[in-house]
Amino acid sequence: MRKRVVVALGGNAILQRGQRGTAAEQMENVKMTAAQVVKMIEAGYEVILTHGNGPQVGTILIQNELGARQVPPMPMDICGAESQGFIGYLFCQALGNHFAQMKNRSSQPICLVTQVKVDPDDPAFLHPTKPVGPFFTEDEARRRMSERSETWIEDAGRGWRRVVPSPDPKEIIEREAVVALVEKGYVVIASGGGGIPVVVDREGKLEGVEAVIDKDLAAERLAHDVNADFLLILTDVPQVLINYRQPSEKPLSKVCASELEVYQEEGHFKAGSMGPKVEATLRFVKNGGKRAIIARLDEALEALEGSRGTQVVR
Amino acid sequence: MRKRVVVALGGNAILQRGQRGTAAEQMENVKMTAAQVVKMIEAGYEVILTHGNGPQVGTILIQNELGARQVPPMPMDICGAESQGFIGYLFCQALGNHFAQMKNRSSQPICLVTQVKVDPDDPAFLHPTKPVGPFFTEDEARRRMSERSETWIEDAGRGWRRVVPSPDPKEIIEREAVVALVEKGYVVIASGGGGIPVVVDREGKLEGVEAVIDKDLAAERLAHDVNADFLLILTDVPQVLINYRQPSEKPLSKVCASELEVYQEEGHFKAGSMGPKVEATLRFVKNGGKRAIIARLDEALEALEGSRGTQVVR
Repeated sequence: MRKRVVVALGGNAILQRGQRGTAAEQMENVKMTAAQVVKMIEAGYEVILTHGNGPQVGTILIQNELGARQVPPMPMDICGAESQGFIGYLFCQALGNHFAQMKNRSSQPICLVTQVKVDPDDPAFLHPTKPVGPFFTEDEARRRMSERSETWIEDAGRGWRRVVPSPDPKEIIEREAVVALVEKGYVVIASGGGGIPVVVDREGKLEGVEAVIDKDLAAERLAHDVNADFLLILTDVPQVLINYRQPSEKPLSKVCASELEVYQEEGHFKAGSMGPKVEATLRFVKNGGKRAIIARLDEALEALEGSRGTQVVR
Repeated sequence: MRKRVVVALGGNAILQRGQRGTAAEQMENVKMTAAQVVKMIEAGYEVILTHGNGPQVGTILIQNELGARQVPPMPMDICGAESQGFIGYLFCQALGNHFAQMKNRSSQPICLVTQVKVDPDDPAFLHPTKPVGPFFTEDEARRRMSERSETWIEDAGRGWRRVVPSPDPKEIIEREAVVALVEKGYVVIASGGGGIPVVVDREGKLEGVEAVIDKDLAAERLAHDVNADFLLILTDVPQVLINYRQPSEKPLSKVCASELEVYQEEGHFKAGSMGPKVEATLRFVKNGGKRAIIARLDEALEALEGSRGTQVVR
């Protein structure tokens, strides 16, 4: 019986700090990331991939903004869907090329456009917090706040930026198709960028909303919905730290959920970075998952096998 | 045994003449189109959907161009992938909502990011013909021709426009995943915009190319690759006409491939409009397909059952 793992890729898996974000740069990074994913598949794991889309959807939003002189800009759900096509294509091609080179004919990648259900009564809708898209002047930001009922905030002297709600993911709409393909041996890429956020009415009809779902929390939902054994969150640091940047700073190698929860309550993990990753691991093991891991991208297989990263257990 | 049909949707299925292309307009059109697709599913057909992306990828190319002051523009393969996410999302949502309203729990839509193999030696690469993206002045066009080895042409007094090759589709890379999902009962959306064109090297490694595949010819490949019984090409006219706009103009109701081929050789069908649709139907029946149909979107089911449209048989 092969073990099933949902792998959540961080921003550095597609675009590295300081890069401009050309197609060539992104394809090169994706190739290197795919090499790490292939190691897990070769070791016998069933892999479901999910990924962030911050820089890519940011670019698409800027393009929509600057293109608005000529063509109608699209709302965030459609921009998110575009970023799933963009990044999913890069991973399909890079993974497929690794398999072709290794003459592995039994593995094939596939990317699904994925919607994720959120609760319209989620308190996040009252308090938009997630900055998206281009920076504007205060005047322009104020104009848009009055015209479009958007929320804009000043961002650390860099200008004004729109913020959107970041509601909790409740359910991966396309989860059954993910499972059907995984069971046929596919490496499925799903729920990119946290998924396209949709609300569901009483009849079961979906509608896109202007929001961004945290990709690690969506990865936890995906892992839960497809009954994964493990959730592996890959980032650019080797382990979770407590007492960050203090003399008593300490990496966590293996930690049970109740201990990690204490650290979480003590405020060791920042909202914008390690916070949602830790929260995702806690939810996964509390919802019945075997083990959740936070690790560095280039130590993915070792972390999955238990010898690297931070291992979170029940 | 349910009959399998590949349905190719024309531009009017997503955006209608004279519309600006707002998200609301496109979603509304997609809802109406989805209602036609649902009729076929209710009648017992296995439906695989494919669609054009001209206006949408055109918009994305304009946005990339105007956004280039701030963010690197993406090549055509990535823009095509973005349009697959965009349009696939609209169809997944619209189809899913129809099923929810009808309390049909056995049908679910799913969209796959799809690459399509083309031959690097295709003569189309020597003669780019397909106009894409925004219009430019002659000076700007000439600058780009010298800087980027792009081909630009003057387009009927409206300015200069880039043209890219339109190579023949050879194979749907993700065909096996399409079949796996169709066999599980999914309504699969695939090969949007003719698919992302890729060339394949000796090792089997894929690489995206700057080109646009005709969506009707790609639909034929898809229909062939998934062993469809029928190919249904939907457009905005009820039937194929011969002697178009002459006193002897005549619609074709049922025609065998050899007769249609004679009309084709006589030049009855224009390259930019009915030409590739007719060619796709001919290829489909000559490659072993049972029947190919060209019909109007709102007569889809009747056409599939034989009482409307132009029926092409062996």
